[in-house]
Amino acid sequence: MEVVIVGAGAVGMKTASRLRRKDPEAKITVVESGRYISFSRCGLPYFLEGKVAGLDDLRKTPYGAVRDENFFKNLKKVDVLTETKALAIDRNRKALRISKNGSEDEINYDYLVIATGTKAVRPAIPGIESERVVGLYSAEDAKKILEFVNEGAKRAVVLGGGLIGLEACEALKTLGLEVTLIEALERVAPTMLDPEMSRLVSAHLKEKGVKVLTSTRVEKIVENGTLKVYAGKEIEADFMVAVTGVKPNSELAVKSGLDVGETGGIVVNEMLQTKDEFIYAGGDCVETVNLLTGEKIFAPFGDIANKHGRIIADNILGGNSRFRGVIGTAIMKVFDFSVGVTGLTEERARNYFRVSSVLFSGFDRTHYYPGTGIVRIKLVFEEDTGRILGAQIVGNGVVDKRIDVFATAILGKMTLDDLEQLDLAYAPPYSPAIDPVITTAYVANNKLEGLFKAIRAEEVKQMLQKGEDFLIVDVRSEAEAKNFKVNLPNTINIPLTELRNRVGELPRDKLVILACPLGLRAYEASRILISEGFKNVRVLEGGLPYLLTL
Amino acid sequence: MEVVIVGAGAVGMKTASRLRRKDPEAKITVVESGRYISFSRCGLPYFLEGKVAGLDDLRKTPYGAVRDENFFKNLKKVDVLTETKALAIDRNRKALRISKNGSEDEINYDYLVIATGTKAVRPAIPGIESERVVGLYSAEDAKKILEFVNEGAKRAVVLGGGLIGLEACEALKTLGLEVTLIEALERVAPTMLDPEMSRLVSAHLKEKGVKVLTSTRVEKIVENGTLKVYAGKEIEADFMVAVTGVKPNSELAVKSGLDVGETGGIVVNEMLQTKDEFIYAGGDCVETVNLLTGEKIFAPFGDIANKHGRIIADNILGGNSRFRGVIGTAIMKVFDFSVGVTGLTEERARNYFRVSSVLFSGFDRTHYYPGTGIVRIKLVFEEDTGRILGAQIVGNGVVDKRIDVFATAILGKMTLDDLEQLDLAYAPPYSPAIDPVITTAYVANNKLEGLFKAIRAEEVKQMLQKGEDFLIVDVRSEAEAKNFKVNLPNTINIPLTELRNRVGELPRDKLVILACPLGLRAYEASRILISEGFKNVRVLEGGLPYLLTL
Repeated sequence: MEVVIVGAGAVGMKTASRLRRKDPEAKITVVESGRYISFSRCGLPYFLEGKVAGLDDLRKTPYGAVRDENFFKNLKKVDVLTETKALAIDRNRKALRISKNGSEDEINYDYLVIATGTKAVRPAIPGIESERVVGLYSAEDAKKILEFVNEGAKRAVVLGGGLIGLEACEALKTLGLEVTLIEALERVAPTMLDPEMSRLVSAHLKEKGVKVLTSTRVEKIVENGTLKVYAGKEIEADFMVAVTGVKPNSELAVKSGLDVGETGGIVVNEMLQTKDEFIYAGGDCVETVNLLTGEKIFAPFGDIANKHGRIIADNILGGNSRFRGVIGTAIMKVFDFSVGVTGLTEERARNYFRVSSVLFSGFDRTHYYPGTGIVRIKLVFEEDTGRILGAQIVGNGVVDKRIDVFATAILGKMTLDDLEQLDLAYAPPYSPAIDPVITTAYVANNKLEGLFKAIRAEEVKQMLQKGEDFLIVDVRSEAEAKNFKVNLPNTINIPLTELRNRVGELPRDKLVILACPLGLRAYEASRILISEGFKNVRVLEGGLPYLLTL
Repeated sequence: MEVVIVGAGAVGMKTASRLRRKDPEAKITVVESGRYISFSRCGLPYFLEGKVAGLDDLRKTPYGAVRDENFFKNLKKVDVLTETKALAIDRNRKALRISKNGSEDEINYDYLVIATGTKAVRPAIPGIESERVVGLYSAEDAKKILEFVNEGAKRAVVLGGGLIGLEACEALKTLGLEVTLIEALERVAPTMLDPEMSRLVSAHLKEKGVKVLTSTRVEKIVENGTLKVYAGKEIEADFMVAVTGVKPNSELAVKSGLDVGETGGIVVNEMLQTKDEFIYAGGDCVETVNLLTGEKIFAPFGDIANKHGRIIADNILGGNSRFRGVIGTAIMKVFDFSVGVTGLTEERARNYFRVSSVLFSGFDRTHYYPGTGIVRIKLVFEEDTGRILGAQIVGNGVVDKRIDVFATAILGKMTLDDLEQLDLAYAPPYSPAIDPVITTAYVANNKLEGLFKAIRAEEVKQMLQKGEDFLIVDVRSEAEAKNFKVNLPNTINIPLTELRNRVGELPRDKLVILACPLGLRAYEASRILISEGFKNVRVLEGGLPYLLTL
């Protein structure tokens, strides 16, 4: 059997490796247009900031062997043709036309695998073709950035506030650069996060010294030794990292008469077969299905690509492996914050479900254990059934663990009540006695039960702007209030522990909004005021930072 | 309504707090025999080793208020009577008889909550009543241990190799003591871990300088300024920490005619009601159900106690909150290792299911990211259905995240195939492209499919002892092999990358066992040998440490 694979990234090399493990005889050829194979692009930001010593580390096995052509040849009997272009597929004759150094050739196949990955998408901005504008999608990009830095660059613009853009901000800042982030939409990580969660990330970027410009379009870029970026105002920079997104690289498939969906991704079935039974496709160049909405989506993630490779190899060998779809899990490190998401944002969920959501903020471990951090969780669920639809978590605490638990719960079609029954691992170094995942379900159920009436920061802000007559009671301790002033109008400080004795100071005829950093004390305070007969009491949901970042 | 709660630990104070939040009027009284309330016993080892500054930190709220009687009185209008004994319940008259400082009194109740926790169990060893033998269950215990240390103690014996015993070893060693751990059974953490996983922990304890004596019974203890512990040999020590377990403190319930099960725990229904509808019980003093086996068990864990408190409060107020049961999740930190478990060990699962298991070892993050550690996973599943029954994880990597994902999957009744479909959060700082949870499912399915034939370390050891004729091929790189010699008989080193060219060096008539630190290269190597026509090839499952710790 002869298998030809186009693309030597995660899907391609995983397919090749698994094929070889299962079939010692198959002739396996991989065709790659670039120079490197099995290269972990996800590691580029960490290489830039110096956490990963060399670019070669991003294509090494865990035991230190560089995954180059020789590695695959000697260890796996897989032929990899680098710097070789796949020109066209002749599906009738089952042959792939290729070219290397100008000379063309043809390879026959029994099965062909298209694993061509993505193409960077750049907006049509005059001047964006400058050599001082690079991406962060390849080893070459990273090298260029380091060249700029070595030549004395001091100021960088990052264009695009998505996952890679935010990782780029951290990397460039760590390199000592002044960094300006420009995002055309009104918030960073717009597809991952709802507005209030996105604002927490923006605030953290600013805290770390990144200039964040949202709702900002670049009109033109002028190069003259350095760059002038015209975006409402003029921004001078030594170079720009343009990471405005990628699209499926499905050109070869289109030319070969295979189907491409509205997402731009190649259409495949659950077995990752195209409409030609001898041609499989996987990874970033195909479209997949969102298991919550049934919608076809484009999901260019490294983990999915790896899974696809395994499934394609199994199916080429007559197996029946299936890829059911994704739920939309992703995570990134942005300075001291981890930012994770799984399932649907509230914004997206509203298109498909009757949804409700809750904000919970808490410690990631017992508060007395050293190094404890905070996780701010937004949980999105179906209003009638309590079914979990999505979670977003932001904070300096352990985020990934909770995202993975929510992701597992979503795949298991769990509800708020199921989350309450989770038997998670508790010991002080790992979690509070009740994990934030479970507490979030508690808070959601408290809210549904009417045990507290929440008010979102956006609403408070509007009321402040309209000059409405209400009172914010900050229930932090005196020390905390002194230490960090909140500077909000209509606000007084009464520590929670004094509240019962000081209810006389509060007006009974006004709306009283209770606030604290996490929302826990505000909730307790609201129960006290209600027990004292107050009728118009609200809890600032999720805590003060949601209001302070507005 | 008058509610009386016996016991001011996690269940008691959680019940009181939630009751108050939901019902401003209820009269709530808590009766506690000790001095402290809301004290986190789980934090004691970290206090001992200096990670937690003071004992008060273990009874503070996250915002620094000490949870003492005044705190509950002022903030929650809850009366807490400390150093007060609950003597007897008069169920007909609905009254609790109490005594404080020798004088008796009675409190009437509408609802009573028994939250009396546990009692330490000590084996009947002559001399164990010495004042130099303490537990690690209370603030007083921790204080005594620090007193010994301040008086110049240099040598400690820890009696009992369960969760608290192992945490104690780390704490005492961190305090600079010589530590000997004595466990009567043949392995440490015997109820949490199967033998091969337990051995990894033992080896780590020894690496950290703890003397580990398993299958060792103490005959007597003689005090004479210091301690002489007779346990086969004579061990001198300045003090002993005896943590041989706890049992439900159900005395009050028994005296009051309530039912106690075979586990010693108070019998309650899913609403945590005893057979007396006006008496609830929860936390460490009740028995609960294992959701996998249906068996009644005793599960004294802080997270369960907290959950119980919430449920009891809801139900006293006419709610219908349920505690379905537990699956047996637990975790502990033992020096650089985290040791986690969820569901059933293979040993226990065999009593209920036809089970199979797999060992997988891998990196917890992309191998190139700084600080990456290793997780060694044992997954137990039902042979016919692939349903996940249990997982044990040991290693210096991130264990808790994977345990929580497995725990969620078990509650969701997921199978190996479901695990393969999990959409978990990938980025280099958080996980490898394919999380170890998913890879474990892959390896299990590979094994079921016959893609590799595994051999367990125990079998190899036996064959070595019998002097059987076979060959172990260590497929590590030359550098690794030089760096760490494995010193096993019948063993040669051929790096994986050279294997294809050196197959001629291997005998075709003998059993060949392939081995490497994690098992990944051994698997790849086995596929190469099989493709070269070798008929009798095995992979040392889980990696070399399983053999080297035997």
